[in-house]
Amino acid sequence: MSRRETQRMTIGDFLLRRLEEAGISHLFGVPGDYNLELLQQLEDHSSLEWVGNCGELNASYAADGYARLKGMGALLVTNAVGALSAINGVAGSYAEHVPVVCICGSIPLRSIDRGLGMHHTMADGTRDRFLGAFAQVTAAQARLTPSNASIEIDRLILTAWREKLPVYLELPSDIAYLDIEVPAESLVLEQPSSDSERLESCINAIVGHLSAASSPAILVDLDVDRFGVAGEVMELAGKLQIPVAVSSTAKAVIDETFPHYVGVYNGNASAPSTLDAIQGSDCLLCIGYRPIELTTGDFTAALPADAIHLRGHSADVGDSNYQAVAIAEVLRGVIAALPYATGHAQVARQPMDAAARAHLDNEVELTQAEYWQAIQSYIRPGDVLLVDNGTSYALFGLQLPPGCTFVGSVNWGSIGYSVAALLGTLTAAPERRHLLFVGDGSFQLTAQELSTILRHDHKPVIFLINNGGYTIERGYLGKTESYNDIVTWAYAALPKVLRPDTTARSFVAETPAALHNALAAPNDRLIFVESIMDRFDSPAAVTSSSNRGAELDYGPRGPHHQEGAQLRPA
Amino acid sequence: MSRRETQRMTIGDFLLRRLEEAGISHLFGVPGDYNLELLQQLEDHSSLEWVGNCGELNASYAADGYARLKGMGALLVTNAVGALSAINGVAGSYAEHVPVVCICGSIPLRSIDRGLGMHHTMADGTRDRFLGAFAQVTAAQARLTPSNASIEIDRLILTAWREKLPVYLELPSDIAYLDIEVPAESLVLEQPSSDSERLESCINAIVGHLSAASSPAILVDLDVDRFGVAGEVMELAGKLQIPVAVSSTAKAVIDETFPHYVGVYNGNASAPSTLDAIQGSDCLLCIGYRPIELTTGDFTAALPADAIHLRGHSADVGDSNYQAVAIAEVLRGVIAALPYATGHAQVARQPMDAAARAHLDNEVELTQAEYWQAIQSYIRPGDVLLVDNGTSYALFGLQLPPGCTFVGSVNWGSIGYSVAALLGTLTAAPERRHLLFVGDGSFQLTAQELSTILRHDHKPVIFLINNGGYTIERGYLGKTESYNDIVTWAYAALPKVLRPDTTARSFVAETPAALHNALAAPNDRLIFVESIMDRFDSPAAVTSSSNRGAELDYGPRGPHHQEGAQLRPA
Repeated sequence: MSRRETQRMTIGDFLLRRLEEAGISHLFGVPGDYNLELLQQLEDHSSLEWVGNCGELNASYAADGYARLKGMGALLVTNAVGALSAINGVAGSYAEHVPVVCICGSIPLRSIDRGLGMHHTMADGTRDRFLGAFAQVTAAQARLTPSNASIEIDRLILTAWREKLPVYLELPSDIAYLDIEVPAESLVLEQPSSDSERLESCINAIVGHLSAASSPAILVDLDVDRFGVAGEVMELAGKLQIPVAVSSTAKAVIDETFPHYVGVYNGNASAPSTLDAIQGSDCLLCIGYRPIELTTGDFTAALPADAIHLRGHSADVGDSNYQAVAIAEVLRGVIAALPYATGHAQVARQPMDAAARAHLDNEVELTQAEYWQAIQSYIRPGDVLLVDNGTSYALFGLQLPPGCTFVGSVNWGSIGYSVAALLGTLTAAPERRHLLFVGDGSFQLTAQELSTILRHDHKPVIFLINNGGYTIERGYLGKTESYNDIVTWAYAALPKVLRPDTTARSFVAETPAALHNALAAPNDRLIFVESIMDRFDSPAAVTSSSNRGAELDYGPRGPHHQEGAQLRPA
Repeated sequence: MSRRETQRMTIGDFLLRRLEEAGISHLFGVPGDYNLELLQQLEDHSSLEWVGNCGELNASYAADGYARLKGMGALLVTNAVGALSAINGVAGSYAEHVPVVCICGSIPLRSIDRGLGMHHTMADGTRDRFLGAFAQVTAAQARLTPSNASIEIDRLILTAWREKLPVYLELPSDIAYLDIEVPAESLVLEQPSSDSERLESCINAIVGHLSAASSPAILVDLDVDRFGVAGEVMELAGKLQIPVAVSSTAKAVIDETFPHYVGVYNGNASAPSTLDAIQGSDCLLCIGYRPIELTTGDFTAALPADAIHLRGHSADVGDSNYQAVAIAEVLRGVIAALPYATGHAQVARQPMDAAARAHLDNEVELTQAEYWQAIQSYIRPGDVLLVDNGTSYALFGLQLPPGCTFVGSVNWGSIGYSVAALLGTLTAAPERRHLLFVGDGSFQLTAQELSTILRHDHKPVIFLINNGGYTIERGYLGKTESYNDIVTWAYAALPKVLRPDTTARSFVAETPAALHNALAAPNDRLIFVESIMDRFDSPAAVTSSSNRGAELDYGPRGPHHQEGAQLRPA
C-alpha cells in the first residue's frame, strides 16, 4: 500500500502554490491588516503577481474578467469590510458561472478561540456571519485552520474549477506562517470521469434522437464556454451540418463566421431565421440553457418539448436523467458515433441588427446608429470585447469576426462590472486588443479602476457613451425624470487625473467625423473615446427590451402606462 | 371595543409615508428597473427627496452618515446587484449601531410565483439568497407582499429605530402600485416602556452601588449617542461630580469641554489620568460598552470586576440581569434618586495627544505633527467631523470644541466610508460646517461620490492626506513593500473633472505655509485641501497601534518580527 508523498510548508505558501498550480498567475485585491502576512508570502515565496485594486468590488470584477480568459481567477480581501464589498462581484461570478477563489484574510484564530472583539466585525462575539453571507452566493466555503487547511484548500479550488462557480475561503491572519504537512504532488485540474454505463447510455440516447431527426439544431448557453467545449459543439454541428444558435449570455462563444452559426436566439425577439432553426427543430440539443426574461424575448421562447438538455455534469434526454456524465465526454462520444451528414440544409445567416445597419450620413450630431456602424467596422479578429449594461447592449447586435472574446454579464447585469473586468482581461491577455463599451451611468460606479489600468501601462480602447444618465432605464420608466439623470463628468479628462504622467490619448466625439478621427488612432497606448449622444437616442433593440421589461416588472397597475413615461423606439 | 382607523393606499406610497413619519426626508440609492416604480411614487406623491448616488456602497455609507445626524436613514437599491453592492455599508451600520432601512426593489412576485428566471438573479430558480445574506447583517428582514406589507413595513422601521440597527426590506416591483388597507395614524417612534418592577429594581440597584462608592465613574460607548442619552449622562456626572470617559468609538459623544470629561479610555494606551479614573473606580457605570482590541489598548483594559453594564434595553448590576429596562428611563431614574454630591474630586483633564502638540517650525516639508496642530486650531464649535481609517486617526487625539459631531467607524473600519458618509451628513445638516479627514488610500475607494456632493452644491472642507499609499498598514507590515503603495492621482484636480462648472477651491499643500494659506480660505464653497506628506511620516499613536495590532494579528511566527518589516514610531 502506497502513501501519498507529502512535504512541509506554511499554510500561506501552500495556498499560493495551489493557486499557481490552478493556472492563476495574478492575484487581485486590496491590502488590509488581516491579509498583509499572505501578501508578504506572495512577495517572498511565490511567482504570483499582486495587482492591487482601488476597492474590493473592483477586485472581484477583475478576478471574474481574468477568469473568463484564464479559466480561473482569485482575489484577496480583508475580513468583513473587504469581503462584503466584494460579494456582489463574487455573486456575479456565480450567476455567470465563473470560477473565482475569494480569499479573505480574517481575524486571528486566537481571537475566535478566546471570543475577543476585533475591528472589522460586529463587535458582538459572532464569528460566522460572513461565511453565512457567502454561503448564499458561492459553491463552497471554509475557514482554514491548521488541521483542515490542506484538505480545504484543495476542496475549494477543485470545486470552483469543476463547478465553474466561485468559492470563499477565510484565512485567519495568525496561521498563514504555521507549518503543516501538505501533498507533494501538484494539483490536477480535471473533471471527475463519467460513469461508463451512464455515459454510454447518454451518448446512445442523444445519438438516437439526432439520427432520427430531420432538422436537428443546437442552442448554446455560456457553459459551452466555461466547460471549454465550443470546439466540440462546432465539430458536431459541422459534422451533422446543423444550425447552432446562442443565447445572448453566450454571445461569440461560437465563432460568428462559422458556417452553421445562425445567430442569437431570444424567443420572439430573434431574427426569423434563427427562430425557425431553433423552434422548428425536431431535435434540439440545448447546452447549459438557463432561460431568463432577457434571453427568451420575455418568456416567448418556445423550445421543442422534447429538447435535450446537456449540462456540465448531467443530461436530460427524453424521459431519462443522466448523472455522472461529463459534458466534454458526452459531446466527444456523440461526435464519434455519428456519421458525417450531407442532407441537412444550410440555414441562412441572420441579418445584422437593424440599428447597426442604419443610415450613415453627415449629420452634425453623432447618433447611436452611426456610432455602432463605426464600431462594427472597428472590431478586428481576436479582439476582447467587454460590454456594460445600457445602450452599449447594441453590441449584441453586431457580427463579430473570428477569434473575438465577448465578456458580458446578461444574467447578473451589475452596472460598472465592465470597467474593472477590463483590468482582469488585460492582465490575463495583455497581448490582445481589448475594447470596452460602457455608458456614463455604469462608468461612474467603478471609474477609479481606470487608474490601475493606467498604472500597469495597459492599452485598451475605452468607448464611453456620455448621454446624461441611465438611458436604458428611461425605456422602463421615467423618460424625463431627474432620477435617471446623472452628473456630467469631464470623462475624457479622467486619465490625466488618475495618472498625471499618462500617455493615454483622450478624444471627445460629438460628431461622426470626430468619432472617425478617434478610431483612426493607433493602438500603441490607451485610447479613451468619450462620445456625446442624445439622452433619448437609444438603439431600437435596447429600448424595445426595456419597454417589454417594464410590463413584466410593474404589471397591469404599473406607472409605465402613463403617457410619456417611457422612452420608446424612434 | 374600538377598531384602529384605517385607510387605503398603495404599498409604495405607504412605505414612503412611513419613512417620512420616521423622520427621514431624503432617500439615497441608485435607480434600477426593479425600483423605478417606487422612485416614481416618490416623485409623484411624497415629500421625500431623492439623492442618487454613483454606486450602492456609497449610498449605504451616505444613509449611515445621514442617520448619525437625523436618527434614521434609508437607501433604495435594486435586486441582488444593488443590494449586495450595499451590504458592506449596511453591515457597517450594524457594527456601529446605526438605524438604516435598506429597501431593495426586487424581482416581481409574479416571477417568484411562477419560478421564472430574471436578470439580477442566479438564473437558477432560487429566490431567498439575498434575504439570507442580509439576515447575517441586519436586525430584521422581509419580502413584502400585499398581505404582509402593512405589518412588515411597521415592524422593520420600528425594529431599526428601537434597536439602532439596520433592516432589509424587499419590495417586489409589481406590487408597489397595488392598493392595501393601512393604518391611518402616524407611526410613533418610541421605545417600548420598561417593566415597572424591573425598572425600579434596576434603578435601586444602581443607586445603591453609586451611593456606596467612593470613586464612581462612567465609561461611555457609542450607544449613548445612538439612544440619545448623552444629556442624561452629563447630568448624572455633573450631579455626582464624577469622571466620564469615552471609548474611541464614542469620540465627542460627551462634550469634550464638559468639566467632568476625562478623555478617551483605551486600556494601557490611555492617558494616565483617564486610566486611573476608570480602572481605579470602585463603581464603574459602563454604558453600551463593547470592547475590541482598538478600544482596549489591545486587551489591556482592566475594568473593575463588578462594573455595571447598562445597554439599550437591559442592564447588568452585580449578580442581576435586568430585562425590559429602557436606557433613558434607567438613567433618569438614577439621576432623580441621587442627591447632588460635593465630595468627589475633580479629575485632571487628560493632556492632548502628543502628536498634536509636537513642534511647529518652519521646515519646508509639511509633517503630520504640523498638520494636526493646524487642524486643531481650525476646528470650530458645531463642526461635523468625519474621519476615515489611516493617519487621519490622529484626529482622535485632538480636543474638540463644544457642539461638534464626530463621525467615525472604529468597530467596522471600512476604508472609504467617510467620503460617502459626508454626503449623508451634509444632506442631514447642510447648515453646519463639515470637515472630512481622509487619506489617499481610503479616498480612492469612493472618490466618485465627490461628484454628488458637488452636484448638490455642498460646501464641506475635504482634507486629503496624499502620502503614497496605506501608511497605517506600513505600521503592521510591509513598510517599504509595493503592496502598500497606490497610484498617485492629481487629487486636487478631481472636483473640476467631476463637475466641470464647479466653484470649488482646490489647494495642494506641500509646506506648512501652503497649508495655512488653504486654511485661510472662506467656507463659502467646497474646499479641497490635498496635503502631501512623507509615506513614513505617521502620528506616533497610529503607528504604535499598528505595531501592536501586528502582534495580535500574526502571532509569534509572524513576518512582522523581521528587521525593517514595520514602520515604527519616529
